[in-house]
Formats: sequence, C-alpha cells, structure tokens
Amino acid sequence: MALPNSIPPDIKPHDGRFAGGQHFFACRVYFEDTDFSGIVYHANYLRYMERARSDMLRQLEMDQNAAYESGEGVYAVVDLSMKYLLPAKLDDDLVCISTVRTVRAASVIIDQNIMRGPDQLTSASVHAAFLSPAGRPRRQPKAWTKAFTSVMEQTDTK
Amino acid sequence: MALPNSIPPDIKPHDGRFAGGQHFFACRVYFEDTDFSGIVYHANYLRYMERARSDMLRQLEMDQNAAYESGEGVYAVVDLSMKYLLPAKLDDDLVCISTVRTVRAASVIIDQNIMRGPDQLTSASVHAAFLSPAGRPRRQPKAWTKAFTSVMEQTDTK
Amino acid sequence: MALPNSIPPDIKPHDGRFAGGQHFFACRVYFEDTDFSGIVYHANYLRYMERARSDMLRQLEMDQNAAYESGEGVYAVVDLSMKYLLPAKLDDDLVCISTVRTVRAASVIIDQNIMRGPDQLTSASVHAAFLSPAGRPRRQPKAWTKAFTSVMEQTDTK
Amino acid sequence: MALPNSIPPDIKPHDGRFAGGQHFFACRVYFEDTDFSGIVYHANYLRYMERARSDMLRQLEMDQNAAYESGEGVYAVVDLSMKYLLPAKLDDDLVCISTVRTVRAASVIIDQNIMRGPDQLTSASVHAAFLSPAGRPRRQPKAWTKAFTSVMEQTDTK
Repeated sequence: MALPNSIPPDIKPHDGRFAGGQHFFACRVYFEDTDFSGIVYHANYLRYMERARSDMLRQLEMDQNAAYESGEGVYAVVDLSMKYLLPAKLDDDLVCISTVRTVRAASVIIDQNIMRGPDQLTSASVHAAFLSPAGRPRRQPKAWTKAFTSVMEQTDTK
Repeated sequence: MALPNSIPPDIKPHDGRFAGGQHFFACRVYFEDTDFSGIVYHANYLRYMERARSDMLRQLEMDQNAAYESGEGVYAVVDLSMKYLLPAKLDDDLVCISTVRTVRAASVIIDQNIMRGPDQLTSASVHAAFLSPAGRPRRQPKAWTKAFTSVMEQTDTK
Repeated sequence: MALPNSIPPDIKPHDGRFAGGQHFFACRVYFEDTDFSGIVYHANYLRYMERARSDMLRQLEMDQNAAYESGEGVYAVVDLSMKYLLPAKLDDDLVCISTVRTVRAASVIIDQNIMRGPDQLTSASVHAAFLSPAGRPRRQPKAWTKAFTSVMEQTDTK
Repeated sequence: MALPNSIPPDIKPHDGRFAGGQHFFACRVYFEDTDFSGIVYHANYLRYMERARSDMLRQLEMDQNAAYESGEGVYAVVDLSMKYLLPAKLDDDLVCISTVRTVRAASVIIDQNIMRGPDQLTSASVHAAFLSPAGRPRRQPKAWTKAFTSVMEQTDTK
C-alpha cells in the first residue's frame, strides 16, 4: 500500500455559497446515484438537497454537529413535496438552489430547485423542524433564527 | 416556488486532480453517510472510492458513459480488500488518494487510501475489470491502457 | 471460504400481499437506514415505499423488468408529498400500506403510509408516470391499467 | 389519505435462520440497489451482508441496539475482502450464507457468500471488532462470544 504523498492544498470539498439571498450548491452524478433505468434514483435527489441544506447551515456558521453533541437538538424533515420535471444522468453537473421561505420559532421552510445548466430538473419544498434529543419540537438557537431571517430578507426572487 | 436566479459561475462540483502520479479527490461527510453509531457506515467509503475512480477517469479523458452507451463496455469491481483504521464523522473533510498499481489488458488495480488531514482512515485495493455489455472481460480501449500506464510510471511512491 | 451448504427452501425474501384492496409490505430497519441522529434518514423511507410499490406490481403480475428490457417503458416518480410523523429506529419492524387512489392512462397515484404496529410514522402520496425509453409519458400496458383499477375498486377505506 | 386497515398478522419482515451451523438470509434486489449499468452497485452487496450479520445476531439473541444504548459497545467492520463473481440484477432473489470462522475476545471473522439459486455471486470475509463508545477495541459480552463459538462448533462445512 502506498505511503500517501502530501495532499495538495487545493484538494478540498466543494463549498456552496449565498448570492442574492439564495444558496447555491453543486454536485455531480456518480454511479451510486443512478438506477438500472439509466437515470438518478428518485430518492437520491433528497440526498443532494440535504447536502445543500447542510452546506447552507455551514455557510451561516450553524454547527449542526455541535448542537447535536451538546444535546441542544437537530433538524429533522417533517414535511416535503417534490416535483420531478426532467431526469439527471451519470456525470451530470447539477446545482441545487435553496431559498428560505418561512422562518418559525422551531422550524424553517426552504424551497429547493435542482438545475442542470438552464434546465430545472426538480422543484421541492422542505419543512425542517428543530427537535430535542427526545424528538420534541424545540425553539431553534436564537442566532440561527436570526441568520435564516436575515437571509430571507435578502432574497430578491418572488 | 422561486424562479431561480442565474447560477454563479464558480458554483461547480469538486474536480480531483493528479499530482506526482497519484490522484487526489475530496469529499465531505453528510448525514446520508453516517449511521446510528455516529460514524460513517462502512459501505459508504466504497462510494467515496468509486467517486474518486470516476473522477480519475474523467481527468484522464476516459468517458465511461460514452463507452457504456456505445456498447463498448464498462468497469466493474471484481475484487477488493479494505482496512478500516479510524472512523470518519459528520462534517469531516476527507481526501481519497488513488494510486494505479497494475495495468492489465482487461483490468486495472488501484490502491485507494482515505485521509482526514494527516490521519489515514482506510486503506484499500480495488481490482476493476472492463466488461462487455454481456458481462464478459474485454480489453480496455487502447488509449485507456496507455493513460493508466503513463500515470503509473509517474508515480513516485513505493 | 466455505462451500455453502444447500439453502433451506423456507429462506425466501418477504413477499407483500393485498388485503381488502390495500397492499401490505414489511421491512426492518438496518444500520444502513439510520443516520448519526439515531433515526432513519428521511430519504430512506422513499426506498421502503419503492420496495412496496415494486412488490405491489409483482403481486399484480406486472413485470417491470421485462417491460423495461423490451423497450415498452418504466415507471418514474413525477410528484410526491410526504409527512414525517414519528421516527423509525434501528431494528424496528415496519409495514408500508399502499392504496391505489387514481388510475390514469399514463400514470397512477398511490397513497403510502408507513406503520410501526399501531403507530403511523409517515404518510405520503406518490404519483408515478409510465415513461417510454426516451422519457416521454406513455400509456401503461392495458392489463396494468385494468389491474390497478380492479385493486382500486376493492379498496374499502375512504 | 386512507385510514390504514389493520395489518394482516403474516406481514412481517423476513427472518433468517441457522441451519447446519450456517446462517441463511434472503433479500431481493430493488431499484435502489442497481446502477445505470443494469446490475447491483458493488457497494450494495455490503448492505446485504450487514443485514445478514444483524439478523444473525438477532437469531442469537444479541441485542446490538441495547448494547449500543447502554454504552457497552457496537460492532464495526475493521477489515474485509470480497470477490465479485457474477452480477445480480433487478428482481433477483438472493441468499446470503454466513459462516463464523474465528472468534476472538474482541472480534469475530465471518465468511459471507451471496447466492442466486445454485450460482455464487460474491464471496467475502468480514472482520468485525467490538468497540467501546470511544472507539477502542473492547471484549465482546461473554454470552456473545459463547454464542459465536457454539455456532462455529456446529458448522459442518470446511
């Protein structure tokens, strides 16, 4: 087994970012994402969307892992709706665009569209609730509510 | 549902790259990758490794999708061995280092190590064979054998 | 490596079945299904639901694989909505109850509820369209439309 | 959304069982398991094998969940090797045959072969270590070591 050489400093995972009050996150379709019909398995778009939401929280300096470990709580999806407009295929480069739509004391609603260049592949709305370790709804940390609200106010789409 | 704004041009999936005859590819650990014991589910490292191999082929301008669609063939894993040294956790930034070890007419053996900074988490050796649409071993396209051989000759680790 | 002994004839995968015009399908929660927060990852319920729909088609003697291979077509999810009411945990025994709600020429709408004993964990509605190999909506085979309609007429829930 | 009818009592997930000192566990290939090349994605056989091992522990009355929750420990794969002999396809009925090969104080080595009828699709050897919540190797509960040893002594294959 090779002793690995030192890792070039530019080899880092993709970070998404906000622009115009929306969050943009890229992903590529790999073998694991497709099914025998040649296109991305429908449940796997939810994995892309979750990666995008996790990245959004990271960009807003919300540390989900620390909140969970400290017993504060964790987000869980409580409601989602999704339309599949066009299929994605192996090697496609996709972008998930996330828009904060509603911020409540204990939950947040985020619209998420997956694009391939100019083509919209899916549209979804995801309602995530903040839950205590016992699984009960709990107020989000104040800084998080504030961050989501701030993002929402910058959103320049209707 | 928001009309998506235009996508910033810097929002693109991570591309790995070669350095010193080894291929480096980054990925981040998301919710989907972990299991209830708090660490990455053991089978999911194989998904990271497959992403890294697919990226390696892409960097070498081997178009797996086109080869499959044209009926030429597709790689399939025929043999693998893997050691798990340290566990990865949510939000970890990982790098998969791939080293071409052996190139045969119809297959290739690649060593793959997954690192978290200086720590090696897993080590593996993967033997992938090129298969015809009927599932029979078939010679790899000549340009591909040549590309793998060329990479192997540049490798400066033992 | 052991030469495997002969396989006992009772070792067969679970088959679901219809009762009262509804389809019942069981599954158990394994490591792979959970995430670090200790519960089933939200996207994985869609995998349970797809297994249940595939089993439903199998019970109705619709051969999805043959239809795909012959170039007739394949079902794809075009729209879904889902509520998460209670979380599932490792080792839970679940039952997915599927109810055919609407049968159209080229698509079908199925309600799917996941239960753990008397507790309802999720409720969902899935709209699946039959697509040609080129991805265009196509009439379902007549026998399939008939089978779905027949099931729907037997359904004794409202 | 339909009020679900009562669940027929025969709708239960598949349970594997021991015969001749080997453990037999069935699974069926669903859409989620396949990739665009039309066969089961190589990493997914590890999921089948993990289901089989979990079922084996369940048949031996080892409660992994309770051991984890009580802070006693959890099994983690530390080493595996696997050969892929023949591919599985959508709708295939598979059986995973598991044979306990070696029992140590803090780990166990299990051979696992996946069969489709008389055809062997994969062969693997999996080394699983019992780990404390801090991730350190820890002696397995005595009853578990005893159960594994007892199984091994009944194995009538070489």
